[in-house]
Amino acid sequence: MISADQASSTSSPVANPSATDTVNRDFDLGRYLQERREQVESALHSSITVVYPEKIYEAMRYSLLAGGKRLRPILCLATCELTGGTLEMAMPTACALEMIHTMSLIHDDLPAMDNDDYRRGKLTNHKVFGDDIAILAGDGLLAYAFEYVAVHTQGVAPERLLKVVARLGHAVAATGLVGGQVVDLDSEGETDITLEKLNFIHTHKTGALLEASVVSGAELSSADSETLKQLTRYARNIGLAFQIIDDVLDITATYEELGKTAGKDLQAQKATYPSLWGIDESRRQAQALVQEAKGALAEFGDKALPLMAIADYITARKS
Amino acid sequence: MISADQASSTSSPVANPSATDTVNRDFDLGRYLQERREQVESALHSSITVVYPEKIYEAMRYSLLAGGKRLRPILCLATCELTGGTLEMAMPTACALEMIHTMSLIHDDLPAMDNDDYRRGKLTNHKVFGDDIAILAGDGLLAYAFEYVAVHTQGVAPERLLKVVARLGHAVAATGLVGGQVVDLDSEGETDITLEKLNFIHTHKTGALLEASVVSGAELSSADSETLKQLTRYARNIGLAFQIIDDVLDITATYEELGKTAGKDLQAQKATYPSLWGIDESRRQAQALVQEAKGALAEFGDKALPLMAIADYITARKS
Repeated sequence: MISADQASSTSSPVANPSATDTVNRDFDLGRYLQERREQVESALHSSITVVYPEKIYEAMRYSLLAGGKRLRPILCLATCELTGGTLEMAMPTACALEMIHTMSLIHDDLPAMDNDDYRRGKLTNHKVFGDDIAILAGDGLLAYAFEYVAVHTQGVAPERLLKVVARLGHAVAATGLVGGQVVDLDSEGETDITLEKLNFIHTHKTGALLEASVVSGAELSSADSETLKQLTRYARNIGLAFQIIDDVLDITATYEELGKTAGKDLQAQKATYPSLWGIDESRRQAQALVQEAKGALAEFGDKALPLMAIADYITARKS
Repeated sequence: MISADQASSTSSPVANPSATDTVNRDFDLGRYLQERREQVESALHSSITVVYPEKIYEAMRYSLLAGGKRLRPILCLATCELTGGTLEMAMPTACALEMIHTMSLIHDDLPAMDNDDYRRGKLTNHKVFGDDIAILAGDGLLAYAFEYVAVHTQGVAPERLLKVVARLGHAVAATGLVGGQVVDLDSEGETDITLEKLNFIHTHKTGALLEASVVSGAELSSADSETLKQLTRYARNIGLAFQIIDDVLDITATYEELGKTAGKDLQAQKATYPSLWGIDESRRQAQALVQEAKGALAEFGDKALPLMAIADYITARKS
């Protein structure tokens, strides 16, 4: 079975899966996500004001406010609340996570990279503003993310906030999504990719920032090291599950559902989990990771309902 | 006369210029710069280790370790020492400043931007590693800069370090060099550019990071607000002087002296200070800004000799 780093060392991830299913049925995830998404959208809207030179601010806003699931900010808010913090403490970091994620999408879509024309149902940043402005909009969002966290976070111990800055940097740099993207670009057309390499790509390209999203929320509320460890286990498992399902959806979903060109991986002869395992086995593996992730939340009891439900949502989602 | 923001409001910047000249003659700037440059080079060498995926770390090191004056790190070290701090406190921020500066050079050189083939006498990053890796190397350096400051700085109050993080972000984002580059790209071929617009470009594209270099060094040593204000005045004046001389050198210097293609501005029909004022008047304006900058250091006495000498060096340099 696939393992999400240390996650694989534990044997029975969920003692009583049916009990977990029961509590999840009592929690209205749709409503929760909707409420959090609206709070995040509102905070993102206020985060960037258009001033001279307008074009760059408009380019940054174009991609930052293009919708999307806002999964990273929501994970950050959820773990901050779970570990005794408040939404207010976590919102600047939540926004920064989305700025960083948006930067990575803008740069990945460039002609020099994946050369994509559509993202979230809209023309990609460089198709609207040109390659030069798209590069700069990404740089601007990345730099602003760190400034935003440092300037706007309130009620958090400064040494903890520095740990969040460090985690964000680590998740984006060559140790994180940049490194994952490099190996991904390198592997294009490589039909006999190993599972090890595929896992490297995704634990870095997608996993690192998802992990930072989850763990930074707990860091902000000064959670202890055991709590950070369990949340890291949760994050790594949902991170990989998320990517496996992304790969599956690239094959099974339509453009309308995804908001971007479907079937890109097949077209680009990209090695994916379904290309290694087939679709059914990929879904099964994702499901096992989700169970493992939920197992890591055992100590939190009912307070972890949002994170439990988000884990389930990852395999159930259609886009 | 040109003004560097608030700098213009004071009348007689240097009460006794000849006295300043005298003290500067007693200070061996060449030796000082050489010693600091070696310390910075050594710290930069240790800052990035090549691990898997090697290509991205090699690309980052290729540009980060390509030489250069290391003016930004040296300014940061100098102001930290001037205001009672140590080299050790400032070295991680000094390295981060050079990482950020290197990112901006890599991205500016891309075909989608200025399309330059040579930088510091070597092929530009994308000519060696490809556009995709060059974009990612820039992203990686930018993100790592923040992580590096947050993780490696010792002996600095966490709340002051957060202010440094904020300053760095502000200096790079659309409020800083990204914004300056946008207006610069926009103005290409614009022959009737206003002085106001030219100043905007350079106070943002070059000035913002130079200012952050100077002021962050003082921030690290917990300098008071009056000291930060005087150092900001120093920084803004040398920042503009630096750019004016850069423009002059683009016309008067050779490829061998610059390590990059000379005459690029004329070729690109770029508006520059010499194109507005001519070469002689540009040099005179730069000299006046340098005197103004040195005036801001009056309160520090002999401790400010390194910064005084650096200000002089800006107008005297040949590359």
